[in-house]
Amino acid sequence: MKRILIIGIGAGNPDYVTIQAVNALNEVDVFFVMDKGIAKEKLIALRKDICRRFIKGNDYRFAEATSPERVRDVANYQASVENLNDDKQVVFERLISEEMSDGECGAFLTWGDPTLYDSTIRIIDSLVKKGCHDLQYEVIPGISSIQALAAQHKIPLNRIGESIEITTGRRIAEGFPNNVDSVVVMLDAEGAYKRFADQDIDIYWGAYIGTPDEILVSGKLKDVVGDIERIRAEARKANGWIMDSYLMRRNTPREEK
Amino acid sequence: MKRILIIGIGAGNPDYVTIQAVNALNEVDVFFVMDKGIAKEKLIALRKDICRRFIKGNDYRFAEATSPERVRDVANYQASVENLNDDKQVVFERLISEEMSDGECGAFLTWGDPTLYDSTIRIIDSLVKKGCHDLQYEVIPGISSIQALAAQHKIPLNRIGESIEITTGRRIAEGFPNNVDSVVVMLDAEGAYKRFADQDIDIYWGAYIGTPDEILVSGKLKDVVGDIERIRAEARKANGWIMDSYLMRRNTPREEK
Repeated sequence: MKRILIIGIGAGNPDYVTIQAVNALNEVDVFFVMDKGIAKEKLIALRKDICRRFIKGNDYRFAEATSPERVRDVANYQASVENLNDDKQVVFERLISEEMSDGECGAFLTWGDPTLYDSTIRIIDSLVKKGCHDLQYEVIPGISSIQALAAQHKIPLNRIGESIEITTGRRIAEGFPNNVDSVVVMLDAEGAYKRFADQDIDIYWGAYIGTPDEILVSGKLKDVVGDIERIRAEARKANGWIMDSYLMRRNTPREEK
Repeated sequence: MKRILIIGIGAGNPDYVTIQAVNALNEVDVFFVMDKGIAKEKLIALRKDICRRFIKGNDYRFAEATSPERVRDVANYQASVENLNDDKQVVFERLISEEMSDGECGAFLTWGDPTLYDSTIRIIDSLVKKGCHDLQYEVIPGISSIQALAAQHKIPLNRIGESIEITTGRRIAEGFPNNVDSVVVMLDAEGAYKRFADQDIDIYWGAYIGTPDEILVSGKLKDVVGDIERIRAEARKANGWIMDSYLMRRNTPREEK
């Protein structure tokens, strides 16, 4: 049997790692590393730092693979992610087959929390259901960028007794949901918040949260939208990439219940 | 100046504590403890266990206070919580004023994540804005019961590229939101999921997540609704209290975008 751990290592700050994750890291024989894009080197280095810092001894190894990339700008986003996951599954299967022996423990380290906008669980679950290996796996939660965002801004995510929606840049661009006032947006490359600047909305925006490069901006959306645009463009240029998220909270009360 | 730390200690499993939280625990002079209700003794004991386990030395103390209780079964839930928070603010203010000296560090340990359905941030922020003490405060995120639920069920919270709503039993009882298929429900004393048993919905339910008493049930809601009801009633009777949450995922696809 081969054992796989999907370990959430938190979003940005290495101190977001939990004791459960530290214990898990110490059980691992081989870490599978599959970062991609312009931040690849930096992300791989951060993972290796976490291992060096929290693992006793050095009885572990890394198996690197090139991560397949999603075909961009296609009409069907979901299908493009599903295709990407199929490609990733092939890579995962090869790694598990060739890079670890029976009885060993392998791990995927995911940024933030593996249960939020991450496909590792989905892919490993498919492999288990396919039954091509005798696999057992566990999921270890991590501090998500959403929680880090709220903690750094020192705000609750929800209003008292109210709901929260967690969504993507792609979805929020379709309109502000009518049934919730607090919306957290992830994966927004296009700055979809801009289209709500005429509404009475507070925004709590952050980039590189939990890292030394962290930037936080908050205020009335209409007052800070220009600042966020400018800071975002500058930071992206300076770092070559940006990872940001934000909470928008609508002030106009919706109809009384 | 007095320094206050609002520390998320995770939901259930003491190993959910992060390295950041452990470091924070070690800076604290006085822990404010304000549990309530039937699980009070157990919850206070768990907090003390966490301190014993993760703090080097024993140079810290506890200041206990009786937590005010919310007036239940009132028409306006939000107002009742606001009243409760006003009452809590009076208690917090007294604790900060009488139980810690200038230059000391005090802490509130919150279950799960302090940014999710917890009023500690709101109350401390009010005290700071009131300006009655020279207060500085920080928020340290923790693993929420939502993440623990998903990790233990080994499921992603979202479908690919889709939104998630986090809501309360009170709100979901008004109906399944029409714009999201994945809904996490917290604070549901009444078992609001029952009303959706005629729909094509998968449920992932859990109680006492991350603790030795953990119970997980998942499946088609219509197939497992009776099991959950029975298990829930038995567990509540056996333990005297229950802390549960669940994810419902609707299978009927909504209109194509």
